[in-house]
Amino acid sequence: MLIATFEHAIYNSIGTVTDSDVMPQALHEILQWTSENHILCHWVPHRKVLIFPDPISDKMLNQLLAFGIKNLIETNSPYPLIQRDLLFAAAPLTIGDIVFQPGTFTLIAGPCSVESRSMIHETAAFLSELGIPILRGGTYKARTSPYHFQGYGHDALNDMRTAASQFGMKMLTEVVSEELVEPISEVSDILQVGSRNAQNFQLLKRIGIQPKPVVIKRGFMNTLEEFLLAAEYIALMGNHQILLCERGIRTFEPWTRNTLDISAIPLMQQQSYLPVIVDPSHAAGRTDLVLPLVKAALAVGAQGAMIEVHPNPSAALSDGKQTLDFNQFTELVREIEHTAKRLGIHLQHLEKNDLGLLMQL
Amino acid sequence: MLIATFEHAIYNSIGTVTDSDVMPQALHEILQWTSENHILCHWVPHRKVLIFPDPISDKMLNQLLAFGIKNLIETNSPYPLIQRDLLFAAAPLTIGDIVFQPGTFTLIAGPCSVESRSMIHETAAFLSELGIPILRGGTYKARTSPYHFQGYGHDALNDMRTAASQFGMKMLTEVVSEELVEPISEVSDILQVGSRNAQNFQLLKRIGIQPKPVVIKRGFMNTLEEFLLAAEYIALMGNHQILLCERGIRTFEPWTRNTLDISAIPLMQQQSYLPVIVDPSHAAGRTDLVLPLVKAALAVGAQGAMIEVHPNPSAALSDGKQTLDFNQFTELVREIEHTAKRLGIHLQHLEKNDLGLLMQL
Amino acid sequence: MLIATFEHAIYNSIGTVTDSDVMPQALHEILQWTSENHILCHWVPHRKVLIFPDPISDKMLNQLLAFGIKNLIETNSPYPLIQRDLLFAAAPLTIGDIVFQPGTFTLIAGPCSVESRSMIHETAAFLSELGIPILRGGTYKARTSPYHFQGYGHDALNDMRTAASQFGMKMLTEVVSEELVEPISEVSDILQVGSRNAQNFQLLKRIGIQPKPVVIKRGFMNTLEEFLLAAEYIALMGNHQILLCERGIRTFEPWTRNTLDISAIPLMQQQSYLPVIVDPSHAAGRTDLVLPLVKAALAVGAQGAMIEVHPNPSAALSDGKQTLDFNQFTELVREIEHTAKRLGIHLQHLEKNDLGLLMQL
Amino acid sequence: MLIATFEHAIYNSIGTVTDSDVMPQALHEILQWTSENHILCHWVPHRKVLIFPDPISDKMLNQLLAFGIKNLIETNSPYPLIQRDLLFAAAPLTIGDIVFQPGTFTLIAGPCSVESRSMIHETAAFLSELGIPILRGGTYKARTSPYHFQGYGHDALNDMRTAASQFGMKMLTEVVSEELVEPISEVSDILQVGSRNAQNFQLLKRIGIQPKPVVIKRGFMNTLEEFLLAAEYIALMGNHQILLCERGIRTFEPWTRNTLDISAIPLMQQQSYLPVIVDPSHAAGRTDLVLPLVKAALAVGAQGAMIEVHPNPSAALSDGKQTLDFNQFTELVREIEHTAKRLGIHLQHLEKNDLGLLMQL
Repeated sequence: MLIATFEHAIYNSIGTVTDSDVMPQALHEILQWTSENHILCHWVPHRKVLIFPDPISDKMLNQLLAFGIKNLIETNSPYPLIQRDLLFAAAPLTIGDIVFQPGTFTLIAGPCSVESRSMIHETAAFLSELGIPILRGGTYKARTSPYHFQGYGHDALNDMRTAASQFGMKMLTEVVSEELVEPISEVSDILQVGSRNAQNFQLLKRIGIQPKPVVIKRGFMNTLEEFLLAAEYIALMGNHQILLCERGIRTFEPWTRNTLDISAIPLMQQQSYLPVIVDPSHAAGRTDLVLPLVKAALAVGAQGAMIEVHPNPSAALSDGKQTLDFNQFTELVREIEHTAKRLGIHLQHLEKNDLGLLMQL
Repeated sequence: MLIATFEHAIYNSIGTVTDSDVMPQALHEILQWTSENHILCHWVPHRKVLIFPDPISDKMLNQLLAFGIKNLIETNSPYPLIQRDLLFAAAPLTIGDIVFQPGTFTLIAGPCSVESRSMIHETAAFLSELGIPILRGGTYKARTSPYHFQGYGHDALNDMRTAASQFGMKMLTEVVSEELVEPISEVSDILQVGSRNAQNFQLLKRIGIQPKPVVIKRGFMNTLEEFLLAAEYIALMGNHQILLCERGIRTFEPWTRNTLDISAIPLMQQQSYLPVIVDPSHAAGRTDLVLPLVKAALAVGAQGAMIEVHPNPSAALSDGKQTLDFNQFTELVREIEHTAKRLGIHLQHLEKNDLGLLMQL
Repeated sequence: MLIATFEHAIYNSIGTVTDSDVMPQALHEILQWTSENHILCHWVPHRKVLIFPDPISDKMLNQLLAFGIKNLIETNSPYPLIQRDLLFAAAPLTIGDIVFQPGTFTLIAGPCSVESRSMIHETAAFLSELGIPILRGGTYKARTSPYHFQGYGHDALNDMRTAASQFGMKMLTEVVSEELVEPISEVSDILQVGSRNAQNFQLLKRIGIQPKPVVIKRGFMNTLEEFLLAAEYIALMGNHQILLCERGIRTFEPWTRNTLDISAIPLMQQQSYLPVIVDPSHAAGRTDLVLPLVKAALAVGAQGAMIEVHPNPSAALSDGKQTLDFNQFTELVREIEHTAKRLGIHLQHLEKNDLGLLMQL
Repeated sequence: MLIATFEHAIYNSIGTVTDSDVMPQALHEILQWTSENHILCHWVPHRKVLIFPDPISDKMLNQLLAFGIKNLIETNSPYPLIQRDLLFAAAPLTIGDIVFQPGTFTLIAGPCSVESRSMIHETAAFLSELGIPILRGGTYKARTSPYHFQGYGHDALNDMRTAASQFGMKMLTEVVSEELVEPISEVSDILQVGSRNAQNFQLLKRIGIQPKPVVIKRGFMNTLEEFLLAAEYIALMGNHQILLCERGIRTFEPWTRNTLDISAIPLMQQQSYLPVIVDPSHAAGRTDLVLPLVKAALAVGAQGAMIEVHPNPSAALSDGKQTLDFNQFTELVREIEHTAKRLGIHLQHLEKNDLGLLMQL
């Protein structure tokens, strides 16, 4: 694979490229030339690079330089746009006041499904009081059976938006369909690609062209290389605000719903500059393992965890077995705070001031 | 789960229900009543049944009877619409002259990707000469890496249609996106849901509302229950022309790309009336196992096999390692014919007469 | 790896080497020389070859030739002694009148455990009447829990011997302990290494130095390479009478106890000259899949199947769920005979004449 | 399962039972009575309990009470002897000065194989200097191929003993054969059952009747229930000094040799009072993951880790790729000390005083 840039300097982050005023004309010429010569070429606007997946002849290389290309980087990386230390440094991903970077840990919490206006309001009130900055919740659901609860859709989306905003939280919800990408992107602060859609490449492409940050969950039977390539699909379409979420893989062990692959966290950190978080609720499928798995994630340098909480798990419409109630979650947060503090990790809290202000409105 | 019908007789196949002229009014009333009472209810037009996934109170049951419901069947089946011996007998799935039923075997063959007009034409000419009735080929591709060949899309679709029609073959191509369901359904005789989309429920729903037969491949990470539920998604939306395709599951064995789960064939036949076929090319990922795996599939009663063939596999843009060349495929078909004959299984051929007629045009 | 022989001809089977009278002295010298020079070297008496696993210098090669070595064969095979087409052709494995070779199929049947003298007698009487030539049965059992039935040991072994002999059958029982190798080898016609001991290398070595044929079952989580290396352990110790038994691998699919890896049969046949059989009872863990799995095995060229039968499966002390009763087994044999005949495969029967003679005694 | 004791009090640990002088006669009578009546019964001397795996009739229960039994405890636990909170509290396992108990962490380190007297001496000198209390090393090896290095056996065992003793360390080595249990038990301080022998039940039984502590590794193909049952085999034979070692399971992920099942640690701690340690070297199969996996183990409350170290890993006869050199290991220990301190976990060190004394000798 060949990466071509218009400037001498290797770009280290979004924003450092400033004098690209001469680019459009050259770019136009190159794209026309590659098209005429049947050369596969991707233009990545946010990174201002051209990617040539196939081998290029010397003659063609010279032609590229003639078009004004300044840097030509040969790489064996299967995912150059998200690769650590190749082109782009880890510009911290920021969502409002939340900054995902090494040494920080962010909790994302909420119910499997948004079941009513009052329950999501009650949950957001509870979570914000604990300082949890991001509210998760299912609006359109991906369920194994067509007869299982499929989510309350549009209504749930709006109720969740209202609840999150009222308590100063960011909201995160899953996108299960290409045609829902745009409507959900307009409402939610963060989008999620679920485990069963981790290789739904058309969905990934669509999510890559909308502007909101994305949590992509590892397919429960995907290798790490496949997972990183799924993230590259999103990056190639122009969206670099990606969080990788390890949520367990399918093995023969029946005592857990899946097996959390703890090694995946350091491995992905080696391979990519993208922040890595974990989902202990889906990995374990049981409440009693949520705390130990979050502790393990903290210890290996994950930057966050997504946890299922519900006012009344035993009455939840989905995933009740792995969902904590408010008392359990309060206790969990105390323990996580304790462990994070000991390990010198900054646990990101909802800013009380912001919240205070919001509450007065 | 409760299945409600308007007639006394249990329907055994599509077509046996004739005197349903009184139904629309009752149906209209029921659907309004369930909606007002927040009762989850699916109306399945092709089967003329109502499905109530959640428990129903006695009072509600009486109300249903008052609406004109004649039969109320309680079932524990997670997939009542495709379940063997529950409501619907195995009305044979027919595609043109091809009838999928026990005792028959149908070969589906073609390249991983349609790479040019001439190669798909050459392949269709070759396959039709051998009597293969269905041409497979990738037009829009689902690839693990965004830098891998993604298929020639619209052009490939049209070229394949022309080639298939010219040689009297039916055509089958994969649908990788919700928004492609309609355009591909208009052109192709059979649609395919790929292994990576086996739990892309929105795609399944969309495919369920178009009229063409569907081959659904087992997700390489899916249990058989999950696979049958994916088929139920399609059936619930109204499309009962479904072929289940076992194509190997992911295991720890590295000598094959996947592990063909031969037990899946009799198990699915026990569970469902839908015909089951195999894909030995993707299961094994190597040409030398295609014949033994087809023989195994014949022996256990599979009703077909889908096999990758290419004029020049070593130059194929995808899947070359598992793709047979024309000589290998000719030899394979001879062996399959021989085994099928010995086992008393009817190998379905392209009708030479039809072909002769077509050739004269 | 380097294989050295004393003769010019490559040995094709046991028995073709005749003029090896000059060997002992040269062999003695070589083994002393390798020992003094710390060169790893295995002498394989039955094959009359020396195996040097590590690279050998040119100087050492010359020295070997000076000792009278005639052939030096360099190989990359990890298992040269059981490798197809390397040194040794597939001399058919014979056990009494039973000849394991392509085109034949042999049924091995009996209870999971020998539970009493009368039950094994009753079973042997029934099976021999059906023409089954080999009686299987557990005497010393390998059980997951120490509180589960561990087999009746010595008594069961003797009762089984008596029953098998009375009805002219060969007997096969598992060896679960190094120290049981010798006592069981003295009594049983065939030894078995179970799936949980497939990488118990000390047991494999011990079994390699006793003279009886061995069925080795694939470990349920072993790759095929690991399985073939386990067989090589036995062969290297001098025993070449080995049957490879595919019995299913552990996957995520819960509807079967294990997943029969049907591809393993042609793959092992490609790799090794050893005969391959299947165990559909343990693979599936349920009676209804035994017949389809045997049919699949027949179709891909397996040379036998081992099936659990019990006079009263519901009262069996172990594995009842996967064990056929006498009526089911009789029906199964009819079906297998039918399929084998159609496929042109010779189903090996207990010789009725022998049986007749025995019965008169 | 029924547990019968001779005393009113439930025994909480070894040593609390003192007034059992009346037991022998009653015990003798019970064992004779169960034998005569074909009642399965295990006497566990160290725990002074009788275990009846099968259901017992009321009449028999009365008979048992008549024999002097005081307590009869009905349990559904499949592994009553190692079950947490059933009968026996977690009496800390002590090996010399090392005490395995919650809040402590013990490092076990050394080479995959003892390759020479000098290398094991050099390694022990280095490790003891760092305060590592237990030296691991392979003497008799379990290798996948018969042509791979099988260990230097007896010589390695003695060299390792000398090295460990000279530097005041405890030694741990694997037992790969039933007949090696006794000789190794006489020499080594701790025995190990390897992953491939985790269901070699005869080996487990033999290890259960020797007095040295045992590390049992989870079979890479075993469920946690199977693993705990393997430990129960050892306990039932009378040895309660067992350490459970999670060392990764086999999955489809190719970037690691196995997948460390981090959930296994809290799950086993819930189920059993036995201490749990991890083997990050075999789990990951690569040096760069050793530190993160040890950190994760610390965070979830594992009580130790076993790590492969070698003076020159690139020249190691086995497992070089996953083995740390001295510099890497020194750095690792610093990091572990740092993390343990932060988490308030006591890292057990070789007592310098003892060492100093020893060095003077």
